[in-house]
Amino acid sequence: MQNAPTHTPAQDLLARRINVLGPHTPLFYDEPLHLVRGEGVWLYDHSGKRYLDVYNNVPHVGHCNPRVVEAMHRQASTLNVHTRYLHNNIIDYTERLSATFADSLSMAMLTCTGSEANELALRMARHHTGGQGIIVTDFAYHGNTEAVAEIGTGFMPESRHTKRVKAFAIPDSYRGIEGVAEEQLADAYVAQIARAIDEFAAEGIPFAGMLVCPDFANEGLLNIPAGFMEKATALVHKAGGLLIADEVQAGFGRTGKHWWAHQWYDITPDIVTLGKPMGNGHPLAGVVARGDLINAFTEHSMYFNTFGGTPVSCAVGMAVLDALEQDNLLENAVSTGDYVAAGLRQLQTKYPLIGEVRDRGLFFAVELVTDPVTKTPAKKQARRIINLMKEQSVLISTIGVHDAILKLRPPMPFQPEHADVLLHTLDKVLQQVSEELVHG
Amino acid sequence: MQNAPTHTPAQDLLARRINVLGPHTPLFYDEPLHLVRGEGVWLYDHSGKRYLDVYNNVPHVGHCNPRVVEAMHRQASTLNVHTRYLHNNIIDYTERLSATFADSLSMAMLTCTGSEANELALRMARHHTGGQGIIVTDFAYHGNTEAVAEIGTGFMPESRHTKRVKAFAIPDSYRGIEGVAEEQLADAYVAQIARAIDEFAAEGIPFAGMLVCPDFANEGLLNIPAGFMEKATALVHKAGGLLIADEVQAGFGRTGKHWWAHQWYDITPDIVTLGKPMGNGHPLAGVVARGDLINAFTEHSMYFNTFGGTPVSCAVGMAVLDALEQDNLLENAVSTGDYVAAGLRQLQTKYPLIGEVRDRGLFFAVELVTDPVTKTPAKKQARRIINLMKEQSVLISTIGVHDAILKLRPPMPFQPEHADVLLHTLDKVLQQVSEELVHG
Repeated sequence: MQNAPTHTPAQDLLARRINVLGPHTPLFYDEPLHLVRGEGVWLYDHSGKRYLDVYNNVPHVGHCNPRVVEAMHRQASTLNVHTRYLHNNIIDYTERLSATFADSLSMAMLTCTGSEANELALRMARHHTGGQGIIVTDFAYHGNTEAVAEIGTGFMPESRHTKRVKAFAIPDSYRGIEGVAEEQLADAYVAQIARAIDEFAAEGIPFAGMLVCPDFANEGLLNIPAGFMEKATALVHKAGGLLIADEVQAGFGRTGKHWWAHQWYDITPDIVTLGKPMGNGHPLAGVVARGDLINAFTEHSMYFNTFGGTPVSCAVGMAVLDALEQDNLLENAVSTGDYVAAGLRQLQTKYPLIGEVRDRGLFFAVELVTDPVTKTPAKKQARRIINLMKEQSVLISTIGVHDAILKLRPPMPFQPEHADVLLHTLDKVLQQVSEELVHG
Repeated sequence: MQNAPTHTPAQDLLARRINVLGPHTPLFYDEPLHLVRGEGVWLYDHSGKRYLDVYNNVPHVGHCNPRVVEAMHRQASTLNVHTRYLHNNIIDYTERLSATFADSLSMAMLTCTGSEANELALRMARHHTGGQGIIVTDFAYHGNTEAVAEIGTGFMPESRHTKRVKAFAIPDSYRGIEGVAEEQLADAYVAQIARAIDEFAAEGIPFAGMLVCPDFANEGLLNIPAGFMEKATALVHKAGGLLIADEVQAGFGRTGKHWWAHQWYDITPDIVTLGKPMGNGHPLAGVVARGDLINAFTEHSMYFNTFGGTPVSCAVGMAVLDALEQDNLLENAVSTGDYVAAGLRQLQTKYPLIGEVRDRGLFFAVELVTDPVTKTPAKKQARRIINLMKEQSVLISTIGVHDAILKLRPPMPFQPEHADVLLHTLDKVLQQVSEELVHG
């Protein structure tokens, strides 16, 4: 008689993974999820169990969207070359893309990842201004290359050693600044940016600009004080800097009302960076910027990206735009987004664990606090909730300084019937975790 | 009666391209080539004209290789997610990939581009050594991000302003160093590396390592003096630095005899970076390195790459390995490579314009000189040749400091029958350009 196997297939796979990728390569959940199939807003694990995906924004128009898969297959079967040959796709695509922006943002450069897009934006801003100093929030993440890690104040070791980056406190209407009245908050946060600009000047580091996610997504999808972005942008421009809007998470209609999150404000960035949802999982990213900036930069510095803007990448990008438009997914982000937000606010009335619900289109943040008065971050509970939600077949995650904010950001074809599954499951899990909180 | 159109479709396309991408986005040839289809070693323009591709290494196993396209289509129709979920593909692929390296290079991290791979290698080397100083050749190009542009001594403005990078003269047996005997050349080049290490020490910049393409491909696919790489590696290690081999161009069997170009020498790098041919055009790249380096780096610094190592990317990478192995493409690189090299050396006997022919597998450099004694680079003639070759339906390009070296680097399924087309056309074009050179 043989010994019974001592490990599950998932455990064996994990052991092999640690062997070749190491133990520190990030994985979600206390028990990692072994996935084998995806379709629309659904994911399936190796046992056939189905999960509602309320986390992934990369499969923007749905997992394995047939329109996108077919466009990729058709072009990959026909031709895939770099951009030093003429091809229609990159021209058709970038023309269509730039048309969704203000007229001044008339030109584009395509890359493969958001990190590459932010690298390019920083190189362009530093070239244009002749400066080096970049201002970000104090809980920023914009990618994984060295110069981008330098501006990753929330996560990256490089950011602790650089003189080229200064941070302002994340503009947060929920927590605010002690001793500052609500109507003074915008000015108080803007004053921090003014101080950073002055410090750069005092240290002899010429100012290059400010780079922020207009949704402040990693910071917690914050409700920022009214007028903050307009005043901050005016200040940056007055000091000779550029405004770089990182739309890698927030863009492509995620917020429903607009194509781009910066369009919620009365501002026009100088450079916008794009990524994650752009190719529905295909590595496609890029920069849309003022034409004078792109021309001056590319004249000065040869820029070539082997896989950026290939016929396949652009066919995929075009299919994503087609799906967004033809399936009315921005309108859906508004209507289903409102439906989800209403449901979350209903749960907030039931559970004091929910300090605030924030929403923008199909992007939601549920800030958890152990006490609604002290607003103490409920970090342990947040972690417990995402693991319990997963056990009950709904995938969500956390964001924010304390990882105590639930992050809900489903693929764009998310419908009210999916919202009902999410809200029903979250209700059950909040009930359980709230009881655990009370009883110890 | 209507006016006749004043522009060709290609001219209209070019005008639109300049409008949305700018005039400085690089294009090949005096008259850009408008491509619409590719298959194997062949490319087709909008008029239906067929070109033999003797340049592109990205479509490594052939343009639109059906095995690769189908693998991509199958996986893209099934599931594509990031690596924070467990999936078989990344494990199967990186295990298989690392098995082609020395035992010490046991772990991998996947990215989307060679620039990202070199970024990661530099971050790892700087973290491991605590140093910043990097040594490269004086005509290097390793990618387009800021830290990688800094080591791009041949091309990038950033490299002219950094204190973290020092260069040694490209080790070139053909041109050598004035006053240095051939058998002393290796030591003379190594002495430059020793000097760079000493200079870093004198300037208080701790040494991190050396990053080179083991083929010295952009430098001109140089024949480097025997013993140079072994002595240089020993010196770098003795000084506490790491050796990073950039196999982005040279890897995946391109040089025929070995999977990796560094395996031509008696050395083992600490980190190897991979890219271009890895996904046959799909944005797939990465790092294979010593496990202790990857573990220490990822423990210290969270690294996550949204599109790196997805199930689709790894399915594509696996299909490329399958094609290389099952179609015996390394063996073909040796046999067809020898056939091409013999033909090029035959042309060398006929045309004094050819100063030297260098070959490694299916990678060839034809160094053009206006005079074989002075070895004056024939830059104008090189440019004329690649444009005439294109007119006659064969695609090649140039490399080297003076852009006077023909670069021949076809897809790996290149056969002797294709070589005959190349050699016959090159003979005709060399005849014409040699006559033009004589007659002024």
